[in-house]
Amino acid sequence: MKIVSQNGRLTWGGLDVVRLAEEHGTPLYVMSEDMIVDRIRQIRDRFLDRHERTRAAYASKAFLTGAMACIVRRENLWLDVVSGGELHTALLSNFPMERVLFHGSAKSKPELTYAVKLGAGRVVVDNMTEMERLSDIAQSEGVLQKILIRVSPGVDSHTHKYIQTGGLDSKFGIPLRGNGLIEAIRFVMNSASLELEGFHFHIGSQLKDPESHVLAAKALVSRVGELRTDAGYSPREINVGGGFAAAFSPSEESAEIGTFLDPVMKTFDEYFEAEGIARPIVCIEPGRWIVSEAGITLYRVENVKDMPGTATYVAVDGGMADNPRPSLYGAEYCAFVANKMDEPAGAPVTIVGRCCESGDVIVRDARLPMCEREDIIAVLSTGAYNYSMASRYNMLPRPAVLLISNGIADTIVRGETWDDLARYDFIPERLRASGQGAF
Amino acid sequence: MKIVSQNGRLTWGGLDVVRLAEEHGTPLYVMSEDMIVDRIRQIRDRFLDRHERTRAAYASKAFLTGAMACIVRRENLWLDVVSGGELHTALLSNFPMERVLFHGSAKSKPELTYAVKLGAGRVVVDNMTEMERLSDIAQSEGVLQKILIRVSPGVDSHTHKYIQTGGLDSKFGIPLRGNGLIEAIRFVMNSASLELEGFHFHIGSQLKDPESHVLAAKALVSRVGELRTDAGYSPREINVGGGFAAAFSPSEESAEIGTFLDPVMKTFDEYFEAEGIARPIVCIEPGRWIVSEAGITLYRVENVKDMPGTATYVAVDGGMADNPRPSLYGAEYCAFVANKMDEPAGAPVTIVGRCCESGDVIVRDARLPMCEREDIIAVLSTGAYNYSMASRYNMLPRPAVLLISNGIADTIVRGETWDDLARYDFIPERLRASGQGAF
Repeated sequence: MKIVSQNGRLTWGGLDVVRLAEEHGTPLYVMSEDMIVDRIRQIRDRFLDRHERTRAAYASKAFLTGAMACIVRRENLWLDVVSGGELHTALLSNFPMERVLFHGSAKSKPELTYAVKLGAGRVVVDNMTEMERLSDIAQSEGVLQKILIRVSPGVDSHTHKYIQTGGLDSKFGIPLRGNGLIEAIRFVMNSASLELEGFHFHIGSQLKDPESHVLAAKALVSRVGELRTDAGYSPREINVGGGFAAAFSPSEESAEIGTFLDPVMKTFDEYFEAEGIARPIVCIEPGRWIVSEAGITLYRVENVKDMPGTATYVAVDGGMADNPRPSLYGAEYCAFVANKMDEPAGAPVTIVGRCCESGDVIVRDARLPMCEREDIIAVLSTGAYNYSMASRYNMLPRPAVLLISNGIADTIVRGETWDDLARYDFIPERLRASGQGAF
Repeated sequence: MKIVSQNGRLTWGGLDVVRLAEEHGTPLYVMSEDMIVDRIRQIRDRFLDRHERTRAAYASKAFLTGAMACIVRRENLWLDVVSGGELHTALLSNFPMERVLFHGSAKSKPELTYAVKLGAGRVVVDNMTEMERLSDIAQSEGVLQKILIRVSPGVDSHTHKYIQTGGLDSKFGIPLRGNGLIEAIRFVMNSASLELEGFHFHIGSQLKDPESHVLAAKALVSRVGELRTDAGYSPREINVGGGFAAAFSPSEESAEIGTFLDPVMKTFDEYFEAEGIARPIVCIEPGRWIVSEAGITLYRVENVKDMPGTATYVAVDGGMADNPRPSLYGAEYCAFVANKMDEPAGAPVTIVGRCCESGDVIVRDARLPMCEREDIIAVLSTGAYNYSMASRYNMLPRPAVLLISNGIADTIVRGETWDDLARYDFIPERLRASGQGAF
């Protein structure tokens, strides 16, 4: 990751972040559109243009707003959504529905109906219950719905167990081995309202090497041959999911996308060439890899507490409400004092959030210059799974999101106000009694 | 915990929850006002009425909405808030500000100013930076602000390390031992705008016995004597926080409040009687203990997946977005199939949420009757730290909250819609280009 400072202050997308904090308040999410686009360009250069018959979808769950959907649309990627809410935001952003993939292990009936009605490009069917439901819905809507089947390839990835999703002991998909998959394929082949485009797998998140993807790809192609014989079916598409690691500190570089995908493509190309059949379209679904490093979060220091013999706590005005990943996964982040970029680091400190629990730690052992009240702390690589996972715990309003492009910062999500926090509250008449209240 | 069913269906507050799910949709938070009031009555009977000069505040962070603030107001408790947002919701509910305690280890300047202007009963000062800030604010507002000082008593509690807050290695408070506290007291005694009412400590959460509270109380009173000599100060109030455990399964009973507080009161009474001085007012701050068991969450089963040799997954339409506690703390919950209360349990299953990660497990090894699509799952004891910690991860709308009293269910928070999820989004002009979108 490349960190740039000017006059002792951190800049992001060419702008002085201390000034952004002053103008827009803190906590504040700041995303660089240029960095997002740079990643998408890498995907184009080193995957889409390098290999024929390929496709890339952006995994919305990492970070989705109307503006983000528009970037993805403009850059001609597909969009992977996992809920009616993400689908609806795509719709509101005029995202072309034929380029939407709808994922999820427990889609509801209203969501499936919505996806079919809107003409979602692919529904990635997770299980037979959903398959039957979707078949009925598509039939009653008079639609031929294109689908992929999610398979669990039985491959363990080397990552936090929470975000490891491709093992056999997983809530996701139909096992690649066993009769379940054959039954599912036969069901689709007999359904007048579903069309099976191929298979999808997803191995896990924050993977640092291609090993798991290659193992899963090998498992899949060896099964593909059997399915041709046993079920008379050959996939037109194979979707290998995402999970490509992002970098979280300036000393790291995230692997370029070819590192992950060249070995996977080699596996596919060799297999299908040997079989003498055309390789299916291969689709990838990066999320974090595209947006994580493009985002930083700005906080204001409220106080510094030196507990002799234990630790120095630098307390900031956000925390687990805007970034639950350290508490959830033990995720490690890197931080700077944005207004003291030229000052030398002192002894390690603990950057703690403002929520009322001890677990609200943002960065342990941060090497920062001497901190004081009103300093601006910038936490790196918060572009993915921060805004999208944010809560209002302790009734902290969710921060605004800025998007910087060409040196101009636009607010793409306004920050919540204290009034917003109770906007959907109602007080039953019987509880109003003494005095009316504002509800 | 007492579980009541009728005609094979779970009831809550006297109402059939399957019907509530049908009428209001799922996921759905359902709270029983009667159970909340019953807990508050226990606090009155076994603490407030049993011991003179006592006070109880409800800890908002467990669960706060406008209606909840009204219940607390009507029942004459104080209210403990930890942010400007909670304070604002109290204000909107006409909560009397003189009964508000404002906590937090990193309150912002706007929040402190707001609390002073509104006339918050107590600001619980966490550190000297805040003390100085508050003194300045109160002075410029022409207010004599009553405060407590939060002390860290150096007592470890037996609970998850994330929610253990009273140890010396803690971001909270001023150490009870050492000169910092004496300096803080002298500062207040010299400040024309602050009035020191006493001390506050909080040991941790979900404590199952009074041991930690008693240890902290003993540590505090032994220090109180020294402070009288060294700083010429005697507290008028001692606030021992909360952290009293709730029950999470029908086979458990949460300890009655006297179990925790009688030994604490004995410690205080004996000490102050021996010293020949009046015991300070003692304040408690239960949150979870009041609301946890009053709340359940209803989910709909979307599919059941039997993975031979590994597990059976019952996938529901909510999960870590509406209840992050299993993922965050490894919290264990208990569930029923609300429409099959009379059916015998089968082999254990795993109830999984719908979020796109393997960590989204709601209950492991749940003993349920055979589940199928459209069953209604009720998860118990979700009244605390579920609604208040909810996110919109995967763009799942936050569920509605129902409050049942006397057999009548009122919506006290309406569920979010898909439109709500993008309500604060803006799309910069340059990104609109092809087609306008709805923003």
